[in-house]
Amino acid sequence: MPKHSVVTVPSGEAHKTLATCEKIWEAMTKDELDRHALVINVGGGVIGDMGGFCAAVYKRGIDFIQVPTTLLSQVDASVGGKLGIDFQGFKNHLGVFNIPKSVLIDPVFLKTLPEREIRSGFAEIIKHCLIADGAKWEEIRAKDFEAQQWPDLIAHSVKIKQQVVDQDPTEKGLRKILNFGHTLGHAVETCFLNKGPKERLFHGEAIAVGMIMEAYLSFERKMIDQQTLTNIEEFLFATYGKVKIKPEDIEEIIALTRQDKKNKGKEIRFSLLKGAGQCAFDIVVTATEMRRSIAYYLG
Amino acid sequence: MPKHSVVTVPSGEAHKTLATCEKIWEAMTKDELDRHALVINVGGGVIGDMGGFCAAVYKRGIDFIQVPTTLLSQVDASVGGKLGIDFQGFKNHLGVFNIPKSVLIDPVFLKTLPEREIRSGFAEIIKHCLIADGAKWEEIRAKDFEAQQWPDLIAHSVKIKQQVVDQDPTEKGLRKILNFGHTLGHAVETCFLNKGPKERLFHGEAIAVGMIMEAYLSFERKMIDQQTLTNIEEFLFATYGKVKIKPEDIEEIIALTRQDKKNKGKEIRFSLLKGAGQCAFDIVVTATEMRRSIAYYLG
Repeated sequence: MPKHSVVTVPSGEAHKTLATCEKIWEAMTKDELDRHALVINVGGGVIGDMGGFCAAVYKRGIDFIQVPTTLLSQVDASVGGKLGIDFQGFKNHLGVFNIPKSVLIDPVFLKTLPEREIRSGFAEIIKHCLIADGAKWEEIRAKDFEAQQWPDLIAHSVKIKQQVVDQDPTEKGLRKILNFGHTLGHAVETCFLNKGPKERLFHGEAIAVGMIMEAYLSFERKMIDQQTLTNIEEFLFATYGKVKIKPEDIEEIIALTRQDKKNKGKEIRFSLLKGAGQCAFDIVVTATEMRRSIAYYLG
Repeated sequence: MPKHSVVTVPSGEAHKTLATCEKIWEAMTKDELDRHALVINVGGGVIGDMGGFCAAVYKRGIDFIQVPTTLLSQVDASVGGKLGIDFQGFKNHLGVFNIPKSVLIDPVFLKTLPEREIRSGFAEIIKHCLIADGAKWEEIRAKDFEAQQWPDLIAHSVKIKQQVVDQDPTEKGLRKILNFGHTLGHAVETCFLNKGPKERLFHGEAIAVGMIMEAYLSFERKMIDQQTLTNIEEFLFATYGKVKIKPEDIEEIIALTRQDKKNKGKEIRFSLLKGAGQCAFDIVVTATEMRRSIAYYLG
């Protein structure tokens, strides 16, 4: 292996900040990395998003390669060129689009992960099926979590995401369907992150919550039928349980949706299902409707 | 005028930092700017580079318009999409390429500038002539600073820079000629910036120093003749005087060239003149040669 520098950063979303980037840029500067240097990001989504962002901004952009080691980052962050960090508690608030020189995905890394981490990644796989492949959704919901075939599902998710991203790289339209479950899901994730490290939800756990709420919004608008809503809800509750959202959290979650990057002006825009396997975007949803969807989730 | 937010930042290169960006991003977040917001950067190069960078990174990039108000930013930063900030004393060490929605240049702003500021901007105009238009170089060097026709020269510089940038937007090759005078010039600028605010040179003043030193390097390699060197040197000394570089500054200046973004590995690469009106790039220059060029400048 050629001579290289190693920068290690603490794990976890709490460190996906400008302060950590500064440490990375300091190390890159100290080691006199030039424009022809290559950054290799080995780790989960935080490392890929933040390490990619640091590379994309250092000297106006140097090459980087992603080696995602979590299921979540393999099926999600590995495709699409979204890089970034959190800012003042808002997820991916600062960032750029930039495509890595290559992405190396090896399912062998899954052996290094706790089950909770794999379960979290599974949520994005479920999402990809729900927005783009109804037959695959039927296939996965017929099996328990333990029986899922990860190498097959990783390849399936990467393919779907790549197809969507190729049609709309900078998220002007179609790409927004990948945000199904994420408008309320991100808000729930941030709300629990703000409570402190012990309460923190894994990304996929929050997205599972968001998918149930947003499936309900889809149902309210008659975009999916009762049976589809029931199927989604049952499978997600069976896989993820129910998150304890307190009454005092509800308005905070709704307020947090205002920071979602899909919004235009003061409107909050959602991506909602049109049956299982299709998705529409730019659907304006009111705070009142969000309150009903949260109440539905809480049952 | 529609409702809008105003963010004011302190003037000067010393504030072109991540800390100032954080304040700008905080203000943008507080005012809930969404992805469809527009940032208008009214000011000199620092404002354009930093405000553009803040816009290009906020929510992975929102639109921005540049309204450059200094001669320097009108003829240089206004074209080419280079955005960024300084980091740990290194100029434009963090940044991205991104094209503004539009650039509005009005020479009326020159009336707001002190003479020293206009003289600084003139250095980039001189550079554009030296690297790409020998006839225009003869035209400007025949006139005193006071007799120059700014609206004509602004249009000329913008055209030259745009032609170069169009051929090589991301500086893989040809665009590097715009760095003539900048390898040693940036190092001199940083060296004096590190001495404190009173010693600080204006950008063009430092670039004038760099152009004399790099014209000498061009001459040593027989890329320009003695007469061309003399013409460049006489015009620049007459316009800018001689900067007092102390013996103890010399090694610091040479060390600072290592951080230049054009370098590959440990080599320091220059863009040097091939006669007045043409320029070559990727020319490796040793520390010994740099020492000789600084000695030549100091006479």
